Amino acid sequence: MDKRFWSSRIQDLEPYIPGEQPKDRVFIKLNTNENPYPPSPKVLEAIRSAADETLRLYPDPEASQLRQTIAEYHGLTPEQVFCGNGSDEVLGLCFYAFFSPGRRVIFPDITYSFYPVYAHLFQLDFEEIPLNEDFSFPVEKFLRGSGGAVVCNPNAPTGRTLPLEEICRILEADPNRVVMVDEAYADFGARSAVELLNRYPNLVTVHTLSKSRSLAGMRVGYALGSPEVMAAVRCVKNSFNSYPLDRLALAAGEAAIRDVEYFEESRRKVMATRERTTARLRELGFFVHDSNANFIFITHPAVGGKELQQGLRDRGVLVRWFDKPRIRDYLRVSIGTDQEMEAMCRACQDILKG
Amino acid sequence: MDKRFWSSRIQDLEPYIPGEQPKDRVFIKLNTNENPYPPSPKVLEAIRSAADETLRLYPDPEASQLRQTIAEYHGLTPEQVFCGNGSDEVLGLCFYAFFSPGRRVIFPDITYSFYPVYAHLFQLDFEEIPLNEDFSFPVEKFLRGSGGAVVCNPNAPTGRTLPLEEICRILEADPNRVVMVDEAYADFGARSAVELLNRYPNLVTVHTLSKSRSLAGMRVGYALGSPEVMAAVRCVKNSFNSYPLDRLALAAGEAAIRDVEYFEESRRKVMATRERTTARLRELGFFVHDSNANFIFITHPAVGGKELQQGLRDRGVLVRWFDKPRIRDYLRVSIGTDQEMEAMCRACQDILKG
Repeated sequence: MDKRFWSSRIQDLEPYIPGEQPKDRVFIKLNTNENPYPPSPKVLEAIRSAADETLRLYPDPEASQLRQTIAEYHGLTPEQVFCGNGSDEVLGLCFYAFFSPGRRVIFPDITYSFYPVYAHLFQLDFEEIPLNEDFSFPVEKFLRGSGGAVVCNPNAPTGRTLPLEEICRILEADPNRVVMVDEAYADFGARSAVELLNRYPNLVTVHTLSKSRSLAGMRVGYALGSPEVMAAVRCVKNSFNSYPLDRLALAAGEAAIRDVEYFEESRRKVMATRERTTARLRELGFFVHDSNANFIFITHPAVGGKELQQGLRDRGVLVRWFDKPRIRDYLRVSIGTDQEMEAMCRACQDILKG
Repeated sequence: MDKRFWSSRIQDLEPYIPGEQPKDRVFIKLNTNENPYPPSPKVLEAIRSAADETLRLYPDPEASQLRQTIAEYHGLTPEQVFCGNGSDEVLGLCFYAFFSPGRRVIFPDITYSFYPVYAHLFQLDFEEIPLNEDFSFPVEKFLRGSGGAVVCNPNAPTGRTLPLEEICRILEADPNRVVMVDEAYADFGARSAVELLNRYPNLVTVHTLSKSRSLAGMRVGYALGSPEVMAAVRCVKNSFNSYPLDRLALAAGEAAIRDVEYFEESRRKVMATRERTTARLRELGFFVHDSNANFIFITHPAVGGKELQQGLRDRGVLVRWFDKPRIRDYLRVSIGTDQEMEAMCRACQDILKG
């Protein structure tokens, strides 16, 4: 690649690689933690009614109504809410807003693999702290002072959860740094750190509507934090892109947050299927981490991760394998419908019979 | 504001301030260069048919179909196309992708006021080259070597256009720097630099569907350039946000580009109204720059810019006034429907009678 016209800053940058989005859709798609259930019918109605001639006008750059709706849902004020184009954009803007060059940011070695990419992009110093042998969280190592900390909770791709008391210890250990808690998966059974927001001005939580609200296709994410801290993200966003959420994403986001009943039902189904799948895979000899997310992290003594992924792909099932140290023998499997998970388990059984 | 938790990089950052989006909609809104005509009916159809259960799935991170459609429209290949969340995001990503710290980027002093904001945000050195007295473009000063150049053509907020021959001179003067030509308004009568793309590997053109395609509410923009140069923007985007365009924005964008007939009709109407309004305002004693954009830049010897803006606001007409040296006595007036422009002219007449 001729990089003559590339900025000196990005000559060695390695982008994040998202899970495959097959164009043909014949696969059982358990590779990108999408929700197997459609968005609320009220979301589709809201979109259809917003799809009118007003699309010629810019959206509200402050996303005021959506922020109001999210604030009410969480019992906060709109000044404590920042909305962005999916939680990936929100995380990226937060990395830029809170972390300073020359001050080391810490996060685990096994976690959402976009964190080191943001750090590289923005030329931040960072350290990947190894998870313990059993992939539990090394809390003690997060108590040292640092330029910031990022905790994905439940963690991806392990699905393991850190209790709130431990998050409090990390927040208190160094009250001058921002601790970001990425709660992309928290709706599937973890206790959310949102209840800590009014106690810790250095806490920022990050949320997405892609998973528990079935809206991956609409790109809506948000952060919560103290008004002064949210003002920093707003300042970066308004210096980069005034309107990251289009009119239909705003309408969809609002309707999704408002339909609490649908949300509760949908996440309950996903959690129930997760528990059934976990039990079934353990019967097949898999080691499966206890998960509070909409995916499970699995390994089998008899078959390697890459081999298993390929075997599943050959049988029409897409799952995620990470070519990374320590987890090469693991697969991350998103929770689909009962039928999809049954098909996945049968495919595993078939592979193991060899 | 307590900036304790703000990155050292953003302590002095001053965000871009977009034109007001009034919540009540009783104004005649000529302040943000929106199109007075709705998007193509085919766009609304495409959105309604895409608003289904597949919104639970991530969009195509590569925007392949939209890029293919745009490539065909311009007679290019998809590798020469990059799509983003409005041309503001595209510009931001381009600033990061092409310009290096310590190498001075140049653009005019009077131009789209987001350029210096990106440069501040990303801590780039830059120089604002003064336009000539009559707001014509100082081509000679852009022939010196630099770390990059940005030319808005037609320029905002003046509406004045630089001929392609002059852009060629700038491209040739320093073939090792990227020259970005922001063509947000080019569809309203300027000759596009797209025809130069296959001759100059250092040329990048930037486009938006917000203006000539009436889709400000959907956030679709794109850049065109050589494959190696577009790969740089893609690299930055994929290190920041994999999916900036949601499924409905992708569908809307495609349908908008495909409906060439509607586009031609809509821009023809805007241009005709612009010419009528220009003539009318000149009769009222205004100085009006010749414009190839969907706005005009006007001043009147008898009344100051701020005063005129307020007078128009009092009469229900929103226009844009910039609190900046050299242009404080000017207003930028977006082209609305004939009726809206007639109301605006009557309001001006009323103010001048004073």
